[in-house]
Amino acid sequence: MKISKRNVIVGQSGGPTAAINSSLAGVYRTARDRGYKKVYGMLHGVQGLLQERYIDLSEHITNELDAELLKRTPAAYLGSCRYKLPEIHEDKAVYDKIFGILEKLEIDVFIYIGGNDSMDTIKKLSDYAIITGFPTRFVGCPKTIDNDLALTDHTPGYGSAAKYIGTSVKEIIRDGFCLEYPHGLVTIVEIMGRNAGWLTGSAALAQGEDCTGPDMIYLPELSFDLKTFVEKCRKLLEKKASVVVAVSEGIRTEDGKYVCELGSSVDFVDAFGHKQLTGTASYLASLIAGELGCKTRAIELSTLQRSASHSASRVDILEAYQVGGAAMKAADEGDSGKMVTIVRLSDDPYQSGTEVKDVHKIANDERLVPREWVNKAGDYVTEEFITYVRPLIQGDVSPVMVDGIPRHLYKKGFHD
Amino acid sequence: MKISKRNVIVGQSGGPTAAINSSLAGVYRTARDRGYKKVYGMLHGVQGLLQERYIDLSEHITNELDAELLKRTPAAYLGSCRYKLPEIHEDKAVYDKIFGILEKLEIDVFIYIGGNDSMDTIKKLSDYAIITGFPTRFVGCPKTIDNDLALTDHTPGYGSAAKYIGTSVKEIIRDGFCLEYPHGLVTIVEIMGRNAGWLTGSAALAQGEDCTGPDMIYLPELSFDLKTFVEKCRKLLEKKASVVVAVSEGIRTEDGKYVCELGSSVDFVDAFGHKQLTGTASYLASLIAGELGCKTRAIELSTLQRSASHSASRVDILEAYQVGGAAMKAADEGDSGKMVTIVRLSDDPYQSGTEVKDVHKIANDERLVPREWVNKAGDYVTEEFITYVRPLIQGDVSPVMVDGIPRHLYKKGFHD
Repeated sequence: MKISKRNVIVGQSGGPTAAINSSLAGVYRTARDRGYKKVYGMLHGVQGLLQERYIDLSEHITNELDAELLKRTPAAYLGSCRYKLPEIHEDKAVYDKIFGILEKLEIDVFIYIGGNDSMDTIKKLSDYAIITGFPTRFVGCPKTIDNDLALTDHTPGYGSAAKYIGTSVKEIIRDGFCLEYPHGLVTIVEIMGRNAGWLTGSAALAQGEDCTGPDMIYLPELSFDLKTFVEKCRKLLEKKASVVVAVSEGIRTEDGKYVCELGSSVDFVDAFGHKQLTGTASYLASLIAGELGCKTRAIELSTLQRSASHSASRVDILEAYQVGGAAMKAADEGDSGKMVTIVRLSDDPYQSGTEVKDVHKIANDERLVPREWVNKAGDYVTEEFITYVRPLIQGDVSPVMVDGIPRHLYKKGFHD
Repeated sequence: MKISKRNVIVGQSGGPTAAINSSLAGVYRTARDRGYKKVYGMLHGVQGLLQERYIDLSEHITNELDAELLKRTPAAYLGSCRYKLPEIHEDKAVYDKIFGILEKLEIDVFIYIGGNDSMDTIKKLSDYAIITGFPTRFVGCPKTIDNDLALTDHTPGYGSAAKYIGTSVKEIIRDGFCLEYPHGLVTIVEIMGRNAGWLTGSAALAQGEDCTGPDMIYLPELSFDLKTFVEKCRKLLEKKASVVVAVSEGIRTEDGKYVCELGSSVDFVDAFGHKQLTGTASYLASLIAGELGCKTRAIELSTLQRSASHSASRVDILEAYQVGGAAMKAADEGDSGKMVTIVRLSDDPYQSGTEVKDVHKIANDERLVPREWVNKAGDYVTEEFITYVRPLIQGDVSPVMVDGIPRHLYKKGFHD
């Protein structure tokens, strides 16, 4: 006897990216194609689900144009959360509540799009389902600009962020050339990634036939020496008028102190009594200005780098879509406690496929840039790094421009 | 007897923009078409010219593809300067030096692409030429993202910056929706423009059918009240989870103090003894966090907004090209001491043309946003403002993508 399919629920978790909604579109499309009745979207991930906040996605994705707009919409369409489930033995009530809601909604498949913490959620929920014999399948769909998930060649969201960073750093380098300063100019560009340097390393993508690229790149995987840095800047300024350095927000000195915290070692309170923290770039810019007497600039790419869908990578958006579909397919075919991974089949021409791996081997692990992909001096990535990231930024996704600005998928009252 | 045409020299001055090189391409093309022998480019404007630093542009723009790449290359191709000429009676030697170089290079036409200070240069040089009976014609070509030049409807460079700001603020608004914080989120976006609010006002372009736009916009033309601002944020947070505010870097309190200087009223020195300045956004973010206990974010669009040629406006790039050609044409036909202006013929459909105006009426003047284009409360621009700026961001200039990154016009050894 054929068992008729019931419903699907999908959620988004962790930091926003330019590609996370393309995965959502992929999950939705495959769920429809495979005959599920309803596709629910949990609002703000599991945290919202616990408050029974969810929507029927068919009321949001009403036609093919909506789906195309969704692929071009940055940040989590459904809203996101940074909620981590307790251990099962610590708080069974939370699990009972979630599974009560899943039972009520007749959920066969639960897809969670996210990073490390989200895969921890998939692991715990699928474990609980096994323990209790609950029939829902739980599958994770990778997403993070940080690119730090284990067992996958890379993560959706990374390619678009890397493309934005490479493009912006190149534009910053050109900008730096323009004005001459008596003692030169040092620009520090601060890039996301507390522990993993995948994003910061992608600043090297600025390099090409028409650009020498940034002068130095500092990843958080290696300890950062302030004095060496100042001396390197001094030497560079002897040869060129404008020096551009890419640094991770997470660089630390040898004793493990974040550079961004050095600036606040002196108590700095504003008129209202609040302590202010300086960023990594602004601390270094101030340091260099003082030591070398040159003009300096601090530029934080901030949230722009994770939400710039106007310069998304086509490879990234398509892979995000495929990975969403693959997660849905795996769950439909009976997998649970798994995450979809991307496998690189070849660099040139670039080809990739998907596999399904045990989420227990992925959750809570953090994949860092290997030491051998950073040069000996620790101030630039190697050719291997660039060969790795270059295919992931290829191609564009034409934004749907309306009145001069990219159009996003939006529902009144929902996204306000 | 027909006098044969000799040479042209063109320079770029002031802050970089995404459109300034399109004007350079326009000047070059028209100079060629009108039969001038050589087109020189002064390096780093008049400052470089005084050191006899210049190039032959034909060695850089060798074919039509180069010209197209030049239009898509951000920041001043020739390098820029912030040099202001002394008054003629103060230092005649400087003028004698410049005119000596112009004589040696057999310059018939001198085009200067820039903003207020650059038009001051055109004014002084053309005055000096009249006084001394020197035959070179001097014509200015407007350029500034600040859009603060008098007598022109708008300036090339502004439209592309406005498009980037509208797009980025829209992406920031979507990003802000994603994560929920117990007491809400306030994001402060800091935008360029010390005295004129044209750029900051363009944050309103984020507003459309699919976005409510930023919640408040503060221009530097009006004084800024900290307490009122905190109260408005408090009220907004009662209604919505994420508040986004666009502020000009130049906002000042009623007593004329820059908000960005308030944070440094307490002596803040880092470990190396250097005083650090806080930006406007980071000061306000810290203020709001302390007063309202919510999560805050400070985002400076910084140099990205002036050099983001990857999201340039087609109207802007084409007008910049036309204005460059019109400046060359005017000089060729005998004008001197003039600047090309853009005249808006109609809003809908948008149509514009160029005129030539006396540079004495433009130099050193600063055009601000009229009070009636800001709402009564002083915290948003009016529909008139949006109607004014909207046509200037229309259309795209497809970047020439090479290996995933926009290609720029570059000469080895010259731009390093």
